[in-house]
Amino acid sequence: MSEALRITRVDITPVAFKDPALLNAVGVHEPYALRAVLEVHTAQGLTGLGETYADEGHLRRLRTAADALVGMDVHDLGPMRRRVAEVLGGDSGSDGHGLTGMITTSSTVDRVFSPFEVACLDIRGHATGRPVSDLLGGAVRDRVPFSAYLFYKWAAHPGHEPDGWGPALDPEGIVAQARRMVTEYGFTAIKLKGGVFRPEQEVEAVLALREAFPGLPLRLDPNAAWTVETSLRVARDLDGVLEYLEDPTPGQEGMARVAREASMPLATNMCVVAFDELPAAVRGEAVQVVLSDHHYWGGLQRSKLLAGICDTFGLGLSMHSNSHLGISLAAMTHLGAATENLTYACDTHWPWKDPAEDVIAPGALGFRDGSVAVPRAPGLGVELDRDALAVLHEQYLRCGLRNRDDTGYMRRLDPTYEKKSPRW
Amino acid sequence: MSEALRITRVDITPVAFKDPALLNAVGVHEPYALRAVLEVHTAQGLTGLGETYADEGHLRRLRTAADALVGMDVHDLGPMRRRVAEVLGGDSGSDGHGLTGMITTSSTVDRVFSPFEVACLDIRGHATGRPVSDLLGGAVRDRVPFSAYLFYKWAAHPGHEPDGWGPALDPEGIVAQARRMVTEYGFTAIKLKGGVFRPEQEVEAVLALREAFPGLPLRLDPNAAWTVETSLRVARDLDGVLEYLEDPTPGQEGMARVAREASMPLATNMCVVAFDELPAAVRGEAVQVVLSDHHYWGGLQRSKLLAGICDTFGLGLSMHSNSHLGISLAAMTHLGAATENLTYACDTHWPWKDPAEDVIAPGALGFRDGSVAVPRAPGLGVELDRDALAVLHEQYLRCGLRNRDDTGYMRRLDPTYEKKSPRW
Repeated sequence: MSEALRITRVDITPVAFKDPALLNAVGVHEPYALRAVLEVHTAQGLTGLGETYADEGHLRRLRTAADALVGMDVHDLGPMRRRVAEVLGGDSGSDGHGLTGMITTSSTVDRVFSPFEVACLDIRGHATGRPVSDLLGGAVRDRVPFSAYLFYKWAAHPGHEPDGWGPALDPEGIVAQARRMVTEYGFTAIKLKGGVFRPEQEVEAVLALREAFPGLPLRLDPNAAWTVETSLRVARDLDGVLEYLEDPTPGQEGMARVAREASMPLATNMCVVAFDELPAAVRGEAVQVVLSDHHYWGGLQRSKLLAGICDTFGLGLSMHSNSHLGISLAAMTHLGAATENLTYACDTHWPWKDPAEDVIAPGALGFRDGSVAVPRAPGLGVELDRDALAVLHEQYLRCGLRNRDDTGYMRRLDPTYEKKSPRW
Repeated sequence: MSEALRITRVDITPVAFKDPALLNAVGVHEPYALRAVLEVHTAQGLTGLGETYADEGHLRRLRTAADALVGMDVHDLGPMRRRVAEVLGGDSGSDGHGLTGMITTSSTVDRVFSPFEVACLDIRGHATGRPVSDLLGGAVRDRVPFSAYLFYKWAAHPGHEPDGWGPALDPEGIVAQARRMVTEYGFTAIKLKGGVFRPEQEVEAVLALREAFPGLPLRLDPNAAWTVETSLRVARDLDGVLEYLEDPTPGQEGMARVAREASMPLATNMCVVAFDELPAAVRGEAVQVVLSDHHYWGGLQRSKLLAGICDTFGLGLSMHSNSHLGISLAAMTHLGAATENLTYACDTHWPWKDPAEDVIAPGALGFRDGSVAVPRAPGLGVELDRDALAVLHEQYLRCGLRNRDDTGYMRRLDPTYEKKSPRW
């Protein structure tokens, strides 16, 4: 164990998996979601896994970083992040990765570094026989609660088979979707992705959810689709109904104006998505809850730093999700287990993934009562299924998608569609 | 390695070692400095070391915590800190430990938890064959620079033998002390503990140091002995001379007033000594440099959290020291190695310790060019010398000191002495 655990090779495999026609404030999910799977190999034969975005610019930066990290020890996370910053130079990474918010060089470094960090912790877990949560300070909970993540959606992508969830284009559809999701997964909190229809209709949907699920915390996230005035109107309409209101309006200044009058906490994964953005947010009191996400906050340890900052400055902490596979779910679960002040149920797109599609061997992760048991096996506790990886990589090659583009896809279907924030 | 590394027993041994008559703003160091040495034992026979304060109240809290932590795994640092908080209840720990600043329940938890955390990391290092710096994210530097820590002092404690350093009661004495310290240790930065004489004399001493050591960064720390007005006068007198001015005046509000006009950065280990105090400090712009110290910031990982907060909020980071032994020096060195933004040379009282006195086997730590090489041996890289421990424990029993009391000691020598902050 005392010899160095040096990185000898990194394999980066882009994959595509089926994604339903989920609507949001900037368009609609394309028929396939893209992810990159990292395998970090060491001289001793131990391998660690990471999962991240797979847009072309990000893939290119991942490969640049991978080349630069060969030869380094998996314990040297600080030096590794510094090395990534060096080789990316001033690359601001502003070419697509599906995230809104200020894109700074430092936040790009965090996005690129993240899957390597997760893979290194996976390796260290295997080397010591400990789960990743133990390397993050130890689990403070055995199970990590996630929330039901509702979307307005079409029954199918145009020209494709229906996905089986049916359409959800009005309050009734949303309640039906919630009922199925809560029944199947046992979720104890519900989040609605809004910003799709007029605010009145989305308020109606939330009120219908409140009636149908009187005991469950509810959240609404219109992805900055509203003006400050509209946000305040919605906040009044949903007074006493929401656990938090997520990103009603663009920018910290607008959020701060809403926060001053809204009765519920404001949450964000748009106006605070990097360490650079925290000081202004803290000073301006723009938000009360920050959504962490190890994919863009620089990995699991830097997500713990974010958690410590939230704890210190009196901010709530929740967790954001993009469409993801099992490696990410495992990492999110270990982080959730080891983060004491992560008191909100975490977001996950998990139910939207075809259960037949993943890159990990089945059985390691499962939902019960809306939560996932923290794996006690070494490392992340999940195993790569090479055949499954090959299938999803084939699908990536075949599907032709190379960058996430919800707006472009929507415009191909409806040429009159315009991206606009705020829209109402 | 996969079995739990459970704590089976904790030995806590108070020790006393000789301390020169070092003067400060509240009195004078007593003839012996007190420390507690922790040995945390695990079922597998691995033992980890920690070092902390040894005032009676602190010792009592350490023992309460030790009893509560038996049976826990050395990875479960989050749960361990929570357990310490539970068993200390609301104990605010306001009975002596030699630290100024707001004493909150949470900062008491951090002070008590700290040596256990260090010992657990030591154990994990031994279990994996890795130095503690590797467990903190990896060393970003091979050697950690420390500063020459100058004190006004008497030649001897009344009734004791001279300590060999001679007196330092004026600028000449301070320059002579600096010359010897820089010659022997190679220090590349100098700090003067002030607050002892009238500010004019201390300004004169700093100017004499500037002349004698034109290339070395200089710091002055009067431990809040001055009013805001006096602080501003000194700041003007030392414009362009100081790397930073440490705690010129009491309280964040006073510090903020000084900071608005002083040309040099203000540093503190008095008005920001706990996570609770950071939000107000950040919002009020009271200080530009925070002195970390793993002994009261909750251990090495929480000191890294402090470092991340300083990095995020644009604060400088330096390191504070109390009189300490080799276990602490090792821990400080690993932390300094693994903390990228710790760009100031760290404080240490090391030169004031009799080289013949310590609790660790000699040879593991040494100064060259003012810095200590980061041990690459597993864990902290230092080994307990049981005979030496027994000698210093005997000295503790014999010396009669049970709580640090610089003021009480001074008043026994000079009944007219009054503790006063600010004094000038």
